[in-house]
Amino acid sequence: HHEASAALLHGRNVLLMIADDGGFEMGVYGNNRCRTPHLDALAAQSLVFSRARTSVSSCSPSRAALLSGLPSHENGLYGLHHDVHHFNSFETVRSLPMILRENGVRTGIIGKKHVGPGSVYSFDYEQTEENNSIMQVGRNITRIKLLVREFLATQNETQPFLLYVAFHDPHRCDHSNPSYGHFCDKFGNGEPGFGHIPDWKPIQYKPEDVLLPYFVPDTPAAREDVASQYTTISRLDQGTRQKNLGVGLVLDEIRRAGKTEDTLIIYSSDNGISFPNGRTNMYEPGLAVPLFIKSPYDLARRGELTDVQASLLDIVPTVLDWFDIDYPKYHILKPSQPTSLGGKSLLPFLRGDDHAESDAFFGSHAMHEVTMNYPMRSIILGERYKLIHNLNAPGTPFPIDQDFYLSPTFLDMLNRTLNGRPLHWIKELSDYYFREEWEMFDLKEDPKECVNLHRKKKYREIFIELKEKLFMWQKSTYDPWFCCVLHMEYYWRTLKDLFALRCI
Amino acid sequence: HHEASAALLHGRNVLLMIADDGGFEMGVYGNNRCRTPHLDALAAQSLVFSRARTSVSSCSPSRAALLSGLPSHENGLYGLHHDVHHFNSFETVRSLPMILRENGVRTGIIGKKHVGPGSVYSFDYEQTEENNSIMQVGRNITRIKLLVREFLATQNETQPFLLYVAFHDPHRCDHSNPSYGHFCDKFGNGEPGFGHIPDWKPIQYKPEDVLLPYFVPDTPAAREDVASQYTTISRLDQGTRQKNLGVGLVLDEIRRAGKTEDTLIIYSSDNGISFPNGRTNMYEPGLAVPLFIKSPYDLARRGELTDVQASLLDIVPTVLDWFDIDYPKYHILKPSQPTSLGGKSLLPFLRGDDHAESDAFFGSHAMHEVTMNYPMRSIILGERYKLIHNLNAPGTPFPIDQDFYLSPTFLDMLNRTLNGRPLHWIKELSDYYFREEWEMFDLKEDPKECVNLHRKKKYREIFIELKEKLFMWQKSTYDPWFCCVLHMEYYWRTLKDLFALRCI
Ligand SMILES: [Ca+2]
Ligand SMILES: [Ca+2]
Ligand SMILES: [Mg+2]
Ligand SMILES: [Mg+2]
Repeated sequence: HHEASAALLHGRNVLLMIADDGGFEMGVYGNNRCRTPHLDALAAQSLVFSRARTSVSSCSPSRAALLSGLPSHENGLYGLHHDVHHFNSFETVRSLPMILRENGVRTGIIGKKHVGPGSVYSFDYEQTEENNSIMQVGRNITRIKLLVREFLATQNETQPFLLYVAFHDPHRCDHSNPSYGHFCDKFGNGEPGFGHIPDWKPIQYKPEDVLLPYFVPDTPAAREDVASQYTTISRLDQGTRQKNLGVGLVLDEIRRAGKTEDTLIIYSSDNGISFPNGRTNMYEPGLAVPLFIKSPYDLARRGELTDVQASLLDIVPTVLDWFDIDYPKYHILKPSQPTSLGGKSLLPFLRGDDHAESDAFFGSHAMHEVTMNYPMRSIILGERYKLIHNLNAPGTPFPIDQDFYLSPTFLDMLNRTLNGRPLHWIKELSDYYFREEWEMFDLKEDPKECVNLHRKKKYREIFIELKEKLFMWQKSTYDPWFCCVLHMEYYWRTLKDLFALRCI
Repeated sequence: HHEASAALLHGRNVLLMIADDGGFEMGVYGNNRCRTPHLDALAAQSLVFSRARTSVSSCSPSRAALLSGLPSHENGLYGLHHDVHHFNSFETVRSLPMILRENGVRTGIIGKKHVGPGSVYSFDYEQTEENNSIMQVGRNITRIKLLVREFLATQNETQPFLLYVAFHDPHRCDHSNPSYGHFCDKFGNGEPGFGHIPDWKPIQYKPEDVLLPYFVPDTPAAREDVASQYTTISRLDQGTRQKNLGVGLVLDEIRRAGKTEDTLIIYSSDNGISFPNGRTNMYEPGLAVPLFIKSPYDLARRGELTDVQASLLDIVPTVLDWFDIDYPKYHILKPSQPTSLGGKSLLPFLRGDDHAESDAFFGSHAMHEVTMNYPMRSIILGERYKLIHNLNAPGTPFPIDQDFYLSPTFLDMLNRTLNGRPLHWIKELSDYYFREEWEMFDLKEDPKECVNLHRKKKYREIFIELKEKLFMWQKSTYDPWFCCVLHMEYYWRTLKDLFALRCI
């Protein structure tokens, strides 16, 4: 069976590149300040998605959802995997690398793994934080280049592959490696004590030159922060020998190995950038991620921008579609709960089919750090109306992760708030900490998500529709958080309601 | 090494019996209604602790703390182990059965395991829910008897053993097996459809006859609930052939195997009973557990009651002391954080030494079900002043677990509250849901924990002392929840305070 599949799939490989907390700091998404010639070149050969989102804005949960095709509450990895957080997917989850291996596809991962258990997320070739320094496999682009070369050199010519390059750039490092700069932007820059990455020519940006996203305060502290972030993004982008080959060094290696013409190339990020409203939030700056896909066979829409709604939950269906592999029939916890993929293949869109009805986007977040319990669910319909359910609001303050807490941007926001100085931001810190249970936005009229519509009479019907569709999705994906919340709502629901909802 | 240790320890075994949500429903603790002749007989040969507590009032976390000797936040098992909850201790934890095995002691478990990962909590002989029906190994006393017999029959005469009998009685089962009655009190009673446990003669109790603890509402619904609980406790207690041999069938087997005279016997429960203020709470009815220890060698205080403060965290030091084994030197997550046991051996108290200064009691709770995030920490000093830190209060309502939610007692409390009828309880449901961040009680003057003293000027110094000792304990046990909370307190602390506490 394996041999048959492998033969069938010969000439079909996948390179999946994921940035860590990477945003839209590149030319193709309208940012001409942060220099990313190789990302832009890859995008020019790709279909570029303007409305791609992660279903959960947190590193490990996003990667588990990406690799399982299942939302956080269904695959079981509810929060960060490492250290005291210690979250793992259910042992019975069937992940993408597992399904690919069973179908004769060789799998490799280079960089940040950040998911578990190992039995579920296992690749044939692994160079990750589990057997290396995360700085070396995640940020040292020369080392990454050589590992990609090694993976390809040990590749059987007749076997298809999936190689997952998981950069640690442009993740913050105030919390883990503060001496290297706020985004580890000094790591390997050749200055005394910072080491040397041979393939990297660091680019310095001036705080006054950066393009501030609307959700970042316009303050000297935040501008300096964004400038450091740009330097790190430029490292991820870096290419050496040739220009216009896509994300520099990695794509160089694909070309050297003669695989450019039969490899599907996907670039995205696990979650939004680590700035206010961004990572760990269900607001657009937390969910929205860059996504572009280059297919060697589907050339129709190269360089085009599509506003089709895409989710990182679509990656598994897309890769399975590419390899023509069916998702297995199985259950994770109970036989009565068969597992199915909620996402869709994105390949049809590369062939010009933008008219397929856009389905709903769904998001599910429980924790980031284990101490940051703040369950949220979200739905977006027709790319216009968005509903966020903050299950613990209004009583519980929104928790701030340690990386962001220690950032110049946030410390400055705290200090300004404590000293009564203006934030130069789109909201006050108290709004950020204390949210309403339901937040409903019209993304067309209010893309910055400033006006909560859920109490407005005019929007009552849409609110109910969103809420019901969200509940239906939670039920159909066996969401453990579905009923417990209703239990706690005894003050505003009657027992009869609870029975009617079959929660007790 | 193993052989030497085993020889040294010959004639020293341990039988550890743990009830599931078992309370003080027995003669030795002043309850003459619930008939428990065998428990009472064992207690009469034991030192009986009147002030024993679990460090966490939740099944899996309590069992992980019991078997690791480390509080929940240090061993990593923060919530229930099974199903969607999926919590596990850190892979590097060195558990009691692991340490015993390394020192030549054979280990066995019969009944409810409810902890993981398997690599940490592994016994030489395992008959648990992982390879049996939990009803059979946890509630069918005839089956339990035969498994104990099998364990002892396969025992090498020269090797010491620890046998852990983990009853599932008297746990509720409205949520899991409602047809068997609220406490599975009909399981195996011989009625049509309920099966037959040959060794069990079920005892029926009348609702009007039960002794209601002060924290259970005096209502027909709650009385009926307690009557069912009594029936289940009597099953756990049941003995057949001979009277006055302690917890009936299990101790019969120990006697048959000729091990009575060299076995340390410990009886306790994992947490308080599943009634309001009980299980999942840090109030005394949630923390307090029965505990008695019978040593064949230390006869001085047989049948005595001691008010020495004891914790289930003392079980590992006690068993290691019994076998004369040192706790290993190692670290769980970071080399800079050496692991040590906070508990103490209880054996000296069996020898008459009650004058040792009673150390502080510490409690640590994060979740029960994964959806029930409600971190709490507690300290009790000198058996008098108790401080509970409800980290998510006052904003977040106290979460109700599914077992208790569905109980006659609680549904009745909900209905009474919704209909404005009297609860006949020590507080209102709104107090129960919404708690203050700090709760401080004088257990001597106010054993029912009704008067929160923390704002009273007169108690200011004691409050500060309790708080500081609690923080010190959290720091010394590497509590992940220590700093994050302070982060969220930015409204009432200054950044300077946070830096001083070294949380950022
Ligand atoms: Ca990330
Ligand atoms: Ca229990
Ligand atoms: Mg970090
Ligand atoms: Mg249950």
